[in-house]
Amino acid sequence: MGDLHDLETPALLLERGKTQANARRLGATLAGRGVTLRPHVKTAKNAEVVHMAFEGGHGPITVSTLAEAEHFFANGFTDILYAVGLAPVKLPHIESLVREGCALKVILDSPQAAQILTDYCSAHEVRIPALVEIDTDDHRAGVRPDDPVLVEIGRRLESPMGSLLAGVMTHAGNSYTSTSVAEMAEWAERERSLTVRAATQLRAAGLRVDTVSVGSTPTALFGRSFEGVTEVRAGVYFFFDLVMVGLSVCATEEISISVLASVIGHQPAKGWLITDGGWMALSRDRGTAKQAVDQGYGQVCDTRGRPIEDLVVMDANQEHGIVARRSGEPLDVTRFPVGTRLRILPIHACATAAQHSRYHVVDGGDQVIGDWPRVNGW
Amino acid sequence: MGDLHDLETPALLLERGKTQANARRLGATLAGRGVTLRPHVKTAKNAEVVHMAFEGGHGPITVSTLAEAEHFFANGFTDILYAVGLAPVKLPHIESLVREGCALKVILDSPQAAQILTDYCSAHEVRIPALVEIDTDDHRAGVRPDDPVLVEIGRRLESPMGSLLAGVMTHAGNSYTSTSVAEMAEWAERERSLTVRAATQLRAAGLRVDTVSVGSTPTALFGRSFEGVTEVRAGVYFFFDLVMVGLSVCATEEISISVLASVIGHQPAKGWLITDGGWMALSRDRGTAKQAVDQGYGQVCDTRGRPIEDLVVMDANQEHGIVARRSGEPLDVTRFPVGTRLRILPIHACATAAQHSRYHVVDGGDQVIGDWPRVNGW
Repeated sequence: MGDLHDLETPALLLERGKTQANARRLGATLAGRGVTLRPHVKTAKNAEVVHMAFEGGHGPITVSTLAEAEHFFANGFTDILYAVGLAPVKLPHIESLVREGCALKVILDSPQAAQILTDYCSAHEVRIPALVEIDTDDHRAGVRPDDPVLVEIGRRLESPMGSLLAGVMTHAGNSYTSTSVAEMAEWAERERSLTVRAATQLRAAGLRVDTVSVGSTPTALFGRSFEGVTEVRAGVYFFFDLVMVGLSVCATEEISISVLASVIGHQPAKGWLITDGGWMALSRDRGTAKQAVDQGYGQVCDTRGRPIEDLVVMDANQEHGIVARRSGEPLDVTRFPVGTRLRILPIHACATAAQHSRYHVVDGGDQVIGDWPRVNGW
Repeated sequence: MGDLHDLETPALLLERGKTQANARRLGATLAGRGVTLRPHVKTAKNAEVVHMAFEGGHGPITVSTLAEAEHFFANGFTDILYAVGLAPVKLPHIESLVREGCALKVILDSPQAAQILTDYCSAHEVRIPALVEIDTDDHRAGVRPDDPVLVEIGRRLESPMGSLLAGVMTHAGNSYTSTSVAEMAEWAERERSLTVRAATQLRAAGLRVDTVSVGSTPTALFGRSFEGVTEVRAGVYFFFDLVMVGLSVCATEEISISVLASVIGHQPAKGWLITDGGWMALSRDRGTAKQAVDQGYGQVCDTRGRPIEDLVVMDANQEHGIVARRSGEPLDVTRFPVGTRLRILPIHACATAAQHSRYHVVDGGDQVIGDWPRVNGW
């Protein structure tokens, strides 16, 4: 596959060993807790990476697009939760996956959507199970566990094919605003208790609830109890990123993807390096802007992935990155001649990886040992 | 090609007639001004769109990646300026394009890079012409016109194949911070006068400068004089976007791309619509955040592209958009049942389009009349 130093820049690198260790860490954390791990593949979007969560096998997964569902189903994954609220126009596509043998489940959070699903399944004589999305953090979608509409949704899922109600699910995305491990544990408990309460409400109304699904990388790693929960979802933990470092979820050394860029020029008076790693390669995500340490568009490392002092990509245009010291101190740019290769750690792994069509796989050295495609788009 | 209402969401739409009118507008503005238009294809990344600037023909173009150079060269475009500073690792790729007959020019802004290019061309007996990048706005790369290093760069471009110096170029990206047409005209004059001064300095040193290249969409449209300039570059004008509306460069009605999304749920108490158009479909670009009107992640329109009051995507997660009124007034969400289709106008056309692999082409109606691929990546 060649040498790292021959890759045209910018290029997305994946460290195999670190990714494997990250994948095992969550598995080990959850082992013996009585819950199933259902990784979210929206970060990795590649079957080779997700196999690492199952020691090479095929376990249950979560997807954010039907393109992911198609790709992973074609790669032998059959138990798939499509965790974005149902858009009716996608029902024929979902139906075709189900008819091909994919155990695909959808989510929804309104009587309207439940009725659309039930009507579709009745008309097409197909069974598409659904989880009801529960709002446990007030940040986006979902119905509150005590809202009477919850039971109404459950009832609307009664169909001639039997109940389509498969369970309840939530994602406490607001756990990302935590500032300590204790706070993440609190979000995890809130996520757990409110979702279990929703399941209890539905069961009290005589409805069957098999699946109680929760998760985000912070709450999956730091939850103390999973009582009443059947499965846990998380995605960014495969790679981690600087937002997760800012949350104390991981160490900088555990981040397993980076963008290789070349120095293309300097502004010596300003102490700037200009690189060919702009926002097209890094994404526009500025997720650490409100954290204690603002990492700009990413921490700058040498080609082995070791951070270089406090160098960050402090600004980015489409195909240009401006590298400077975070402290604002002057940088001796002669240390980094034109052609110097740098690796930039991602602010938000999902966003950075999405700017690339493939991973150039390395394993601690200069050799590129793999070329793994990503399934982008919808 | 089917009907707009059958497209799975999210999907990128391109209005053909509007794009054609935008392409003609800059052509008409520059006609008779003694300059060549060299469109920047980094926004469109598709040959069908760029043909519109040349009434179907092949003119000179600017690219931001070698992937674009490959795609456009394969589609008959031969005069190509690669307008990102030279990364030495790309020289073999550049050489191969030149040997295939592509008149590819590179840019650079240091004696170091000039020497690398000259050494490479000497060693490989190939002629790769270069423009020197001039800093006219203090925002990124380039050498100041009065910096003695400018002439040193010119001299380093002397090679056994003759001088590789083809000219000078600049991009006043800071024109995007303007708040009025008068200010954009001032940026244009600064861009012009400083680049012409750089050409004069090189010529005074006995060096030949054929090309004097300037441009950005605001300065191309509002420049009053192009004296001494030989060519003008611009890219976003094919599509326009809400940043350009905020700059008074165009009207909202002229924006010619949008993202089709579906309503997937509601938060009635908050007056929110939840859609499947998140930042993966819209990009993370928040370019209007510091303008007078903050459009969030995009203005919301009906399926014909007509703005719906002050509805904007006020927040976005990976595959979720949260739509609310910009004013903060409550929204009657029952007007937009689950399954309602909306079109979201882009904040920054380059960034939004880059999240998609293709354009679904429409022309004022519900029929999809084309499916045009984009050349993303590097």
